[in-house]
Formats: sequence, C-alpha cells, structure tokens
Amino acid sequence: MQFSIDLNADLGESFGAYSYGADEELIPLVSSANIACGWHGGDPCCMRRAAALAVKYGTVIGAHPGYPDIAGFGRRAMALSPKEVTDALLYQIGALDGICRAEGARVSYVKPHGALYNSAAKDPKLAAAIAEAVKLYDPSLVLLCPEGSETARAGKAAGLRIAREFFADRAYLSDGGLVPRSMANAVITDEDAVCERVLKAVTERTVLSVDGKPLKLDFDSICLHGDNPKAVHLANRIRSALTEAGVSIEPFAE
Amino acid sequence: MQFSIDLNADLGESFGAYSYGADEELIPLVSSANIACGWHGGDPCCMRRAAALAVKYGTVIGAHPGYPDIAGFGRRAMALSPKEVTDALLYQIGALDGICRAEGARVSYVKPHGALYNSAAKDPKLAAAIAEAVKLYDPSLVLLCPEGSETARAGKAAGLRIAREFFADRAYLSDGGLVPRSMANAVITDEDAVCERVLKAVTERTVLSVDGKPLKLDFDSICLHGDNPKAVHLANRIRSALTEAGVSIEPFAE
Amino acid sequence: MQFSIDLNADLGESFGAYSYGADEELIPLVSSANIACGWHGGDPCCMRRAAALAVKYGTVIGAHPGYPDIAGFGRRAMALSPKEVTDALLYQIGALDGICRAEGARVSYVKPHGALYNSAAKDPKLAAAIAEAVKLYDPSLVLLCPEGSETARAGKAAGLRIAREFFADRAYLSDGGLVPRSMANAVITDEDAVCERVLKAVTERTVLSVDGKPLKLDFDSICLHGDNPKAVHLANRIRSALTEAGVSIEPFAE
Amino acid sequence: MQFSIDLNADLGESFGAYSYGADEELIPLVSSANIACGWHGGDPCCMRRAAALAVKYGTVIGAHPGYPDIAGFGRRAMALSPKEVTDALLYQIGALDGICRAEGARVSYVKPHGALYNSAAKDPKLAAAIAEAVKLYDPSLVLLCPEGSETARAGKAAGLRIAREFFADRAYLSDGGLVPRSMANAVITDEDAVCERVLKAVTERTVLSVDGKPLKLDFDSICLHGDNPKAVHLANRIRSALTEAGVSIEPFAE
Repeated sequence: MQFSIDLNADLGESFGAYSYGADEELIPLVSSANIACGWHGGDPCCMRRAAALAVKYGTVIGAHPGYPDIAGFGRRAMALSPKEVTDALLYQIGALDGICRAEGARVSYVKPHGALYNSAAKDPKLAAAIAEAVKLYDPSLVLLCPEGSETARAGKAAGLRIAREFFADRAYLSDGGLVPRSMANAVITDEDAVCERVLKAVTERTVLSVDGKPLKLDFDSICLHGDNPKAVHLANRIRSALTEAGVSIEPFAE
Repeated sequence: MQFSIDLNADLGESFGAYSYGADEELIPLVSSANIACGWHGGDPCCMRRAAALAVKYGTVIGAHPGYPDIAGFGRRAMALSPKEVTDALLYQIGALDGICRAEGARVSYVKPHGALYNSAAKDPKLAAAIAEAVKLYDPSLVLLCPEGSETARAGKAAGLRIAREFFADRAYLSDGGLVPRSMANAVITDEDAVCERVLKAVTERTVLSVDGKPLKLDFDSICLHGDNPKAVHLANRIRSALTEAGVSIEPFAE
Repeated sequence: MQFSIDLNADLGESFGAYSYGADEELIPLVSSANIACGWHGGDPCCMRRAAALAVKYGTVIGAHPGYPDIAGFGRRAMALSPKEVTDALLYQIGALDGICRAEGARVSYVKPHGALYNSAAKDPKLAAAIAEAVKLYDPSLVLLCPEGSETARAGKAAGLRIAREFFADRAYLSDGGLVPRSMANAVITDEDAVCERVLKAVTERTVLSVDGKPLKLDFDSICLHGDNPKAVHLANRIRSALTEAGVSIEPFAE
Repeated sequence: MQFSIDLNADLGESFGAYSYGADEELIPLVSSANIACGWHGGDPCCMRRAAALAVKYGTVIGAHPGYPDIAGFGRRAMALSPKEVTDALLYQIGALDGICRAEGARVSYVKPHGALYNSAAKDPKLAAAIAEAVKLYDPSLVLLCPEGSETARAGKAAGLRIAREFFADRAYLSDGGLVPRSMANAVITDEDAVCERVLKAVTERTVLSVDGKPLKLDFDSICLHGDNPKAVHLANRIRSALTEAGVSIEPFAE
C-alpha cells in the first residue's frame, strides 16, 4: 500500500522591515503554502516573494486570510459580522490572487488564519460566511480546516471540496479537539515523539489522545510550523521521516 | 456625425462608519466607476456595495488603487519604490476583483488615485511600475490617465490600451496641463460655463485655456466629482447637457 | 433645591477626509467632551480642533480611548489581554493629553469607547485593566462609566473618583441595564418624551423602566449623541429643557 | 581634561508578534533611549517594556516619533503638511509620555525618526513644525538632531535646547554632511576603524572626511545602531573603547 500526504505551513507573514518566519527554508519542505494576505501579516512585496518561492519549488498556494489586526497578528478574536467576514475574505483572496498572477500562479485553496480559524471552527455563522466567500470567489477552491469543525460542515454544505489538517506537534483530546495551549502538554516538544506520531497518523490514521486512548483521525494535510529555528528543524525532521518511510508528499489541491 | 463619450467618477470610498461621496446618486450617472481598493479609502463592504450598484446600472468597473494612507485619503505623496508600487497595485486590483466576483462582475480598467495619480503623471519610473502591474495582472485592462502624461507613455510602452480623461470643472494651462489648485481659477464653479465647456470639448475636442487660447484635447472620458451635494448636482447637469445634445454616454472599456 | 448636572458627548471622531459628528454644534452644548484618541476614530488634527473648541467654550476634556479598529469605529469587541488594554489606554490618554497641551488644556477624565466600554462594563479583568491605566496615568482623573458596572467597581477599588452616566434616549430594563439595541423600543425617538424623562431623572433620580416600573438611578452626567442632524437637534432640546427648568449644567470634573 | 559624551540608540521598535532590534542588549549600553511612538514602529506594550528597561538602567528616555507608516518603518518620505507634522508629534510625544508615567519616568527629549528626520533636516517648514510641537508640548524638552541642519536652526529659533549627534559608523563629506547610503563607503564596517574614529571625534572633535580632510564636528551624542547582532557587537565595542579611554558616558538631558 502506498501512502501520500500533504504538508502545509503559514508563509509570507513578514511585514515591511519586520521579518517573520523562514520562508526560504520552509517552502521547499511543504507541498502547500498558506500565504498571508496583508491583514494579519504580510505585505504585497513579501507576499510576492513567498509566491515566487512557491512557484520555484512547485508548492501549491493557498490564501491565508485573517482579521484586520497586524498589531495582534490576527490572533485576537474580533466581533466582525458574517457579512464583514465574507467581504473581507473576498478582498484578501483576491489580493493574494493578484500577487500570484505576477508569478504565473493562482490561489488554489483557502485556510483562515489564527483567531478567525479558531472562531469559525466553533461558530456556524462565521463558518458559513467563510464558505460563502470561497464559493463566491471560485467554487473550485479547496477549504483547509480542522476535521469535525463547523468550518468543515459549512464548506461541505456550500458544495466546496474541503481538506482537513493534522497538527504534528499538538496533543489531542479524546474527542478529537486540540488540548488548549493554556494547558501543560498542549505542545509536544520531543522531536522523536512528534515524528513517530506523524508516521503513525499517516499510515494508520490514528493518534494517541492526551489520556492515552487511540483516536481515529481523518486528515489530508499536516500543518508544520516555521516561526523559529527549532520549528524549522522539526519540519525538516518530519519531512525526512515521512519520505524515508516511503510516504510521498503530495498537495491536496492543484 | 454621432458623438459618444465616457463619464467616470471615484466611488466606493466610504470607510466603516465614515460615509464619503454619493455612490447611489453618481453610479447611475456614469459609465465607468473608479472603485476604491481599501488603501486610500474603501473597505470590503462598501466596495462591494459600489460594485453591486455598478452591476445594477450597467456601469463598467475600474480599480482605483492608491497609497497606503487612509488618514490622508491617498492625497499625500509617499516615497514608495517602483517595486512597492507594482506589488501594491497587484494587491489592490486583485482585492477589488475578488469583491467584484461576488457580484458577477470583473475589473475592466485601472485608474491610480490621488497623489499616486499625480506623481506617476510626472515620474517615468512610477508610471512604468503602474503599467507593469496592470500588464502583469491582466494585459487586457485599460489604463485611465491624463493625456500627455508619463502614465500614458508608460501604458503605451507596455502594450496596454490607455484611456485619457478630461476634467470637466478644471481650468487648463495652454500647455495642456491643469491649472494647479493653489491658483485662483483652478476650478470652474459656474455650472453653465462647465456644461458649455464640456459640450465643446466633446464635439470639437477643444477647450479654451486659462489664458484664452484654444487648446486641442484628445480624451476618452470625462471625470465627474461627487464628494459633495453641489458636485452631484453638477454631474447631473453635465450628463443632461450631453444627452440633450445627442451625445451618447458609452464606457471606454467593457 | 438647586439641581445641576453634567452633559457629555463623543467628539473629535472625524478622521482625515472623513467627517463625523457635529463638533461645532455639540461642544457649546455640553460640559464634558469625550474626545477620540485616534484608535477608533480621530486623528491628531481633528483631535486638536475638538480640544480648541472645548477650550473656547469652557468644556472639560475627557479621553475617549477605544480598540485599535478605525475600520470598525471601535464597535467590534476585540480580545485584547488586560495588559494590552492597560498599555493601550496609557498610550491613548497620553496622546490626547499631548494634543491638549498645545491648547493650554489637559485631560480631566476618561470614558472608554464603544465595544471597550461595553465589554469592560461586564468583565472585571478588563475593567481592572482600565482602572489601572487611569490610576497609573494620573490618579486624579475621573472614570466615566455606567452605574453598577464592573468599570465602576474597578474604578472605586483602584481609589479613583468615578462618574456615572445616564443615556437620555435609551430605554432601561427594570434591573437598571439598557434595553439592548437589538430589541424594539431600545431607543426613545419621541423628543418630548426624552426631554420629560431627562428632567424627571435629574430632579427625581427616577426613570420608568421599559416595563413601566419606577427605577432609581444615580448618575453624574447625561450622555448626548451628535452623530446626525436629528441627534444634534435633540441635544439642543435637552439642554434647553434643563436650563429652562433651572437645572444648571456643570461638569463633574475640573 | 575630562571628556564625557552621550550614547543614543533607537529602541522599542518591535510591533506585536514582530520583534525588532535588541532592546535588552542595547539599553544598558546607552545613556539615551530613543523610544518609538507607535507610528513607524512600536506598540504600547513594547514601548512600555523599553521604558521599563530604561528606568532599570538609568537611561534617559526620548520620544522617537515618525511618519504614520508601519509598513514602511517610517523610512518613506510622506507629504504631510507642517500642521499635520506638529499635531502628529504632539500625539506621539504624549503617547510615549503616557506609557512612561506607568514606569515612573518621563520623556526628556525628542528625536524625529527616519524619513521625517531626514526631510526635516533640509526643510525649514518641516523643521519649524517639529520645533513647534516640542515647544508646545514642553519647552524644557531637548531636540536631538544633526549639527548644521534645519532642525537644529528651527529648534534654536524656537528657544529649545538642542543636542547634535555624531554617527559612529557613517562616513562624512567634507561639508559635514553624511556620505549618502547609495554611495560606496557610506558605512564604515571595520570595527577598529570605527572605534578609533569615535575616540578621536570625542576627544578632538575632529573626524577625517571621506576625502581625507580633517573636519571639525560639534556634537553632544553618538548614535549607535542595534538592529542586528553585528551592530550590537559594535555598540559594545564603542562603549568599551570610550570607557577604557576614560571618557564617561553621560546623558545630554535629564
């Protein structure tokens, strides 16, 4: 049996004189690049650099839209109305798509960022607003979201293709949710453990929950982080572990 | 002989709780709507309202990108590099195009806003940066600019179709330039005089310069203003004067 | 017996080319001017114009800080941490105070704006963060807030002087809370009814709740609105009704 | 004879999730901290951290106001009117002063940032607008600026105390101006050469110009950079070289 999986990461989040993340190191490692759209991070020049790198390495490009909050990096929940969210996403997806055109590329999927990602996962109205934007923009775009989330439900209800992601270094509750970052053990820091866990998840679709129970997980992509040198190192290890185990890295979208 | 001309106006420039201009009154009057792109004015919701009105009235939509300066309404020159200008325009044109998709429309032309419009008209590098963005985004887009400007030259050099505009209520120097706003008589306030002038310009391609000399003018569009009730009244009068004289109002782009 | 009361209004909320409210009409009517601090509205020039008007009419100046959200006019709740709120208020109060110095004036009190005002009223941590900022900035500043709110509690706990406000045109629940804007009858639009209600509230410290029960209300200031011509007209009528009834208009702070 | 000199550096320029510079390393090295005010960089929380570090190490605090352009880090000239510049500075100085109050400190001087610094040095109207803001805010504040600049002239004309700065690692023209960064040799990269040059400048008030002529220089402070690890290393070396040579490091302001 032949296994394949997608790897995604957040990219293009630098802003003017402010550097963030490690686009040069990460883009070659992933098959899907979630590129910031200028609202939580990213400016047109660094978005274009990220798009050019994605083209160079054959990485599929996704829009990574967020709340209008550079100062908070899109991590602070904001009470936007569903209408405001839909229009904000049309704006941001279009903006990145405009940048991509200059590099001969196009946006292929959408992954909401930060607080928008988290809020939509639990809020059916917000999730529907996101799905509506994706559908209005281009119904062939894929929506990347957590398994079992309102976002996934809303995407399916809108007739969109969805992709679900697995967080390589995050502990899961036995109900399939993530252990909140406020709790100890939310993040798995042992690199060997993370790699082993990822392999098992990809080949068996199973992880052990934080209380030791086997948990069935359906997913189409693994989310890697690259916001510090350690994270880049781990991303490299995960990719190597997968390819050495004969798992091919394939984008979920085209 | 049958005359036709395009009418354009700046629209969609409201911002959140801040209302600006008279989109509802102006959009039915013009054949081309320059819709703000969120950098000098405009937010996704008001951009979408403007796009929906344009669709309703069959008005062609143009992108109206500007400097990143809401506080200054894009009227303050900013020393962006040509590279920054190109990427900023790709971003803004794409953003508006994303909004337009939700209304079943598309961006058909680009008119730079405010200080960017004025600076590019005199600066070959800035003008080339703008033309490059338009070409990279979609070489079938028209570039709306002043006759005889660097913007016009750069647009033609890039192989773009350009459209030139005539300012209905602005006095012209005998070299074809506008009388600067800092001078008396820069703006023609007598409505009858403006209407007569517009008719003569459309039917004879001639205006009297500020020092009384006949000036040949080539143009494809007349720029109307709508940022105050008087301006809307004048816009109405100009449109009426043209249609009563048998001039048809036709967009320069599709 | 001699009655006196303070009148306050939100002012200085214009932003660049975007005009908002009616500072020229309202500042002469009120004894306390809540001037925006540039985060939800207001820019340095319009803040300074408002401060100059306040000095001209002897109006006491208060800082009106909000969330960092010009596009949402500070009306969208944002998940700032208490630490972020404290520092944001120090920044905004200081900024307005800097502007006031140029007009020979100083900030005398603080009234949080919009979503920050509403969230703090119910959230003890947010309320404490606001009170801490006011105390750190200048413990002699008064904190203007709703009666019975967490903000009032936190202000008193921090040793601050607080002032409570009454909303002239809003219906009250029998528990002293405001009827939510989502419900019918939230806003009282009959001008005669509003004036009568205000007089009764000032002279008897009583209003009828939305279900017809007399409600005891302690307050130090009446909040007037001025964001549209009707609101300015009502503000004028309320002031006239009060002065004709012999109630003197006096600021709660110096 | 006993020599003393001030060392200054730009600090507090991080922004939300975006880290910039090395405040922890630099603040102990300098006697004067130019803290960003949130317009070109800096947010209230990181401004407060910088202020707290300055208090901890006894470093004098100056306001470092700039153009409203986080995306351009205040390095892009913007056509603000003198009136806008004055009000922008009142706002920014006040904002930092508000932050400083929470740490028991106050702003003691003002150094314009980036493009504002450079433009004002050559533009008498801009320079006068800056001097007016400082004077209106607090006429006892010192204005830190280049020797021989319009800023220095305007500061003196406004009755302000000025301090002039020497750039440790920049080459000078024989007229006292800096060699533009566009030219080779604009920046002196040899650390030994920089240290030697600084010592000579402090003890003899002389530097060799780029064409080898001795140039008399009056200055009150040396500007150190800290935006990369090399710059921090050089700052350390300069400080050590000065103290080993018996030069005491003393702030120019209190």
